[in-house]
Amino acid sequence: MNLNPAQAAVTHPPAASADGVWHRCHLLPDGDPARAIRDAALVVQQGRIAWLGPLAELPRDYAALPRFDAGNAWITPGLVDCHTHLVYGGQRADEFAMRLAGAGYEEIARAGGGIVSTVRATRAADEDTLFALAAARLAPLLAEGVTALEIKSGYGLDLASERKQLRVARRLGEAFGVTVHTTFLGAHALPPEYAGRADDYIALVCDTMMPALAEEGLVDAVDAFCESVGFSLAQTERVFQAAQRHGLRVKLHAEQLSNLGGSALAARYRALSADHLEHLDEAGVMAMAESGTVAVLLPGAYYFLRDTHLPPIELLRRHGVPMAISTDHNPGTSPVTSLLLMMNMACTLFRLTVPEVLAGVTAHAARALGAADRHGLLAPGRAADFVLWQVDSPAELAYWFGRNPAAAVVRQGKVYPGAAPAQGVQP
Amino acid sequence: MNLNPAQAAVTHPPAASADGVWHRCHLLPDGDPARAIRDAALVVQQGRIAWLGPLAELPRDYAALPRFDAGNAWITPGLVDCHTHLVYGGQRADEFAMRLAGAGYEEIARAGGGIVSTVRATRAADEDTLFALAAARLAPLLAEGVTALEIKSGYGLDLASERKQLRVARRLGEAFGVTVHTTFLGAHALPPEYAGRADDYIALVCDTMMPALAEEGLVDAVDAFCESVGFSLAQTERVFQAAQRHGLRVKLHAEQLSNLGGSALAARYRALSADHLEHLDEAGVMAMAESGTVAVLLPGAYYFLRDTHLPPIELLRRHGVPMAISTDHNPGTSPVTSLLLMMNMACTLFRLTVPEVLAGVTAHAARALGAADRHGLLAPGRAADFVLWQVDSPAELAYWFGRNPAAAVVRQGKVYPGAAPAQGVQP
Ligand SMILES: [Zn+2]
Ligand SMILES: [Zn+2]
Repeated sequence: MNLNPAQAAVTHPPAASADGVWHRCHLLPDGDPARAIRDAALVVQQGRIAWLGPLAELPRDYAALPRFDAGNAWITPGLVDCHTHLVYGGQRADEFAMRLAGAGYEEIARAGGGIVSTVRATRAADEDTLFALAAARLAPLLAEGVTALEIKSGYGLDLASERKQLRVARRLGEAFGVTVHTTFLGAHALPPEYAGRADDYIALVCDTMMPALAEEGLVDAVDAFCESVGFSLAQTERVFQAAQRHGLRVKLHAEQLSNLGGSALAARYRALSADHLEHLDEAGVMAMAESGTVAVLLPGAYYFLRDTHLPPIELLRRHGVPMAISTDHNPGTSPVTSLLLMMNMACTLFRLTVPEVLAGVTAHAARALGAADRHGLLAPGRAADFVLWQVDSPAELAYWFGRNPAAAVVRQGKVYPGAAPAQGVQP
Repeated sequence: MNLNPAQAAVTHPPAASADGVWHRCHLLPDGDPARAIRDAALVVQQGRIAWLGPLAELPRDYAALPRFDAGNAWITPGLVDCHTHLVYGGQRADEFAMRLAGAGYEEIARAGGGIVSTVRATRAADEDTLFALAAARLAPLLAEGVTALEIKSGYGLDLASERKQLRVARRLGEAFGVTVHTTFLGAHALPPEYAGRADDYIALVCDTMMPALAEEGLVDAVDAFCESVGFSLAQTERVFQAAQRHGLRVKLHAEQLSNLGGSALAARYRALSADHLEHLDEAGVMAMAESGTVAVLLPGAYYFLRDTHLPPIELLRRHGVPMAISTDHNPGTSPVTSLLLMMNMACTLFRLTVPEVLAGVTAHAARALGAADRHGLLAPGRAADFVLWQVDSPAELAYWFGRNPAAAVVRQGKVYPGAAPAQGVQP
């Protein structure tokens, strides 16, 4: 037995093809229980969905295909985790322990903690190390049925290190057969060598890093951290303008700790999403509604930081802003690797309804990636990305916590075993 | 592919023997990082721990034994989940969804929700159904390295149904090679047929159910739900007196919603533990300290109920009351199946330190079961119950959430694969 992660192979073993007729199942084509199809069938051909509907209406043409007995599973689209910082060096568990033992900010900083420690560890790590660390964090997300996710840079904060993060993100997608959307988040924090020179750093981000990384095909979208402890509205707008010059869509970390008006700015730039939003006001909500910007809610950070200021769910509902749910996986404020747990937290802490969280990790999350035409929906012609859940009711996906009822995950037309049958209850 | 749980075999496949020398590892013999042994070895012979210590001091006698390369894993004792209601019929996900959609107590009751629905489903289910449902809930706990757990009755509320729950609990232990402590919780709630006749029901619990179930060897301890919405102090004391007559140790659901003084009563009866304790006062803490009663903290219920009244952690520390952490798995107030997540919640929500939560799921949890001589400690002569964690620092066990870094679990001398290598990162 060799359990050393550095020595473990880090790609999936060959997986079986999902081509055939999946029967004895119930479908939630867009995650909405109101549009469920009971006693359904789903046909996969050449890795794509060919047909879905009630089993009784299955076209004769498919009668000769192999059959997969889904055992009365519920089938949803593959889950989409639309906001993660999955690629970084090290972890901050010892800082977590120190803080619980009573250490203050100063003491932790002296011990080398805080975001600077992650930047240092990320810069120091080579690509293979970053890949192995991120692969281990990705594994539980894949086991839960995540078939598309966003991965941000933002712990390199210099050209070579941001490039390294984004290259690793791309490699993860190839190695694990999962769709990865990369986001350049150079404007995440001020690197130590630019202390007191934030505008100069923003110039580096806009004029050097972004052009180079975009040219190399490493950037699907651009993000910034707009906050009193991050970058100002004016600096954020410079980043957005640079993105616009490169034809890149934007998104924003906004209104997490205070209401700077970042979401309204993001809406003016037709951002894909504005994320966090605990301090968002109605003007910001209306601007987002008008621009079609998705509100990405991040209950993991809210929980981990013991925040008490809830995002304005009622206003978002009233103005029809689509809400997505994501892990915000990161080592400082949300070291979580379970999107199902985020669904439970969005219900428990934010009082979202079950249909809202199901849409929040499928259709709305896909839209937050600018990928509503490829993810978050089961439909003919789309890639076979779906999950079989060993549950009696779709509400169980949000109700249980610390449990993964995925019986099987189909990703890009391949079948992977889920956690539900593998963990103890063996077929 | 057949994913129907009813058709799946529900015992573990034959697992490999753990006999041999486990090397390239670091040990936390009692969960306390201050007593860690780095670069250690652990010797298993005939399913029992024969030796542990620094690898450099490994006695020559063991040189010829097979070697297990632990890949620099941290090894802890098997985890102990000391408070669960794991065996019951049905689930309450649809009730959860209704409540989020705005339904009130009345409407949910009319729709057949609430604890009564679990009692009805438990009474209606046969033993095999209850076993299959509980096995699926047990699986994620086993995958996280739980090697001993407590399972309560309390959803049957009549002799035959309580017996059925306890028999299933015993069967789970045999089928999965895990230590199960059974607790008779007849005094959990008033069954509908005894409405308005709580004292009569307590008489049934004490004079009929307890003697029969104890006689059948199904009861390791006795518990009650002492609360304004449960049973009174006087009724609880009758249950304790009956337990005493049968030579059974007691424990108590106490001070969750109000301060009735249940913990002090439990301490007078030298209870193994008093559990929940959000409203415990200093007199209760002192009584527990004097009687050696363990404080079992249940952050899952605290979180799920959006409680804001913290248990008196500082008082428990000051008076030296041992604190354990448990899932309290149950369908109404804590549908969680992750003890690791409870460790994170105990840190995040209750501000316990990392050493406190490590002790809380090992040594102190074992003590709450009255099994401190068998569980929660790695020591020569004990059964080989331990977990290999693929982490750099033991603090990671409490820091990550929604992630299971168990690389392998050894239970009763057998090796089971953990989630860490199985979920995507394949050896
Ligand atoms: Zn973020
Ligand atoms: Zn309980």
